[in-house]
Amino acid sequence: MKTTDQPKADTELHELLVDQLRDILWAEKHLVKALPKMAKAASDKKLSDAFTSHLAETKNHVVRVETVLKGLGLSTRAKKCPAMEGLLKEADELAEEYADSSALDAALITAAQKVEHYEIASYGTMRAFAQRLGYADAVKLLTQTIDEEGKADQALTKIATGGVNQMALA
Amino acid sequence: MKTTDQPKADTELHELLVDQLRDILWAEKHLVKALPKMAKAASDKKLSDAFTSHLAETKNHVVRVETVLKGLGLSTRAKKCPAMEGLLKEADELAEEYADSSALDAALITAAQKVEHYEIASYGTMRAFAQRLGYADAVKLLTQTIDEEGKADQALTKIATGGVNQMALA
Repeated sequence: MKTTDQPKADTELHELLVDQLRDILWAEKHLVKALPKMAKAASDKKLSDAFTSHLAETKNHVVRVETVLKGLGLSTRAKKCPAMEGLLKEADELAEEYADSSALDAALITAAQKVEHYEIASYGTMRAFAQRLGYADAVKLLTQTIDEEGKADQALTKIATGGVNQMALA
Repeated sequence: MKTTDQPKADTELHELLVDQLRDILWAEKHLVKALPKMAKAASDKKLSDAFTSHLAETKNHVVRVETVLKGLGLSTRAKKCPAMEGLLKEADELAEEYADSSALDAALITAAQKVEHYEIASYGTMRAFAQRLGYADAVKLLTQTIDEEGKADQALTKIATGGVNQMALA
């Protein structure tokens, strides 16, 4: 998809949006690397499948952010996101710490839901900026991703309350 | 308030909950240090006031987490939270980068909403664990905080769409 938004490159809000797009691009790319490890670590089949299916979506999220950047006439350079770095470090630590625990899956879901919420907040503010800037195509693409992140978060809640938390009582 | 929950200390889910309580305690304590800086940095009076009023709430959140820990017969030791460390680093970077920009407030709101969502995800999973463990008092305290975090997030959205994002178009 090619976008046809007219960049308002001289506004500070445009600059902030671009900044946030580069930040989430870094975040999504690193999530692409982390999700296969999380799928492998999960002991519950449904949870493992949820991580794998979210991996496919996350690869799409990368493409969408790149499409938005290109549509604004910009490079697809990513910018290191300290928050996602911290979130994924936490996920790693939990996976290691609970490797042999019946609470492993509950711990993985905790880490994953924090990641989802980071993304929901980030895409939510970016969409508000894009709306204000009149970037209709960007709004459309960002909305698709917001919807998927929300559903991914709900799916994890369902898996947690559907048995994983109960199992961790062992 | 004293809680009367009976700790199921031999379960893995209890251990994970305690882990997450110590993590969010670190996060809330560091947010108490960060919010006055954010209130000072904000140029919009409403935004500055929102940060100040959330500071008072955040101090209460610290007390509530400590109450839950004490109620389970545990110390109020905090555990470093790499995710919040990353989130607050990002907030610092944005505040510095946009110090003289008309998008400063929009940037501060972005950073703050990511923090709120981290907390919403964290408290949400902790409440689910506490429910499963039958810790009724903990559920009550965690729910009070979840409600306040949600309202703080909504208040920031209102300030952003109510004028701050428009101003950043300058």
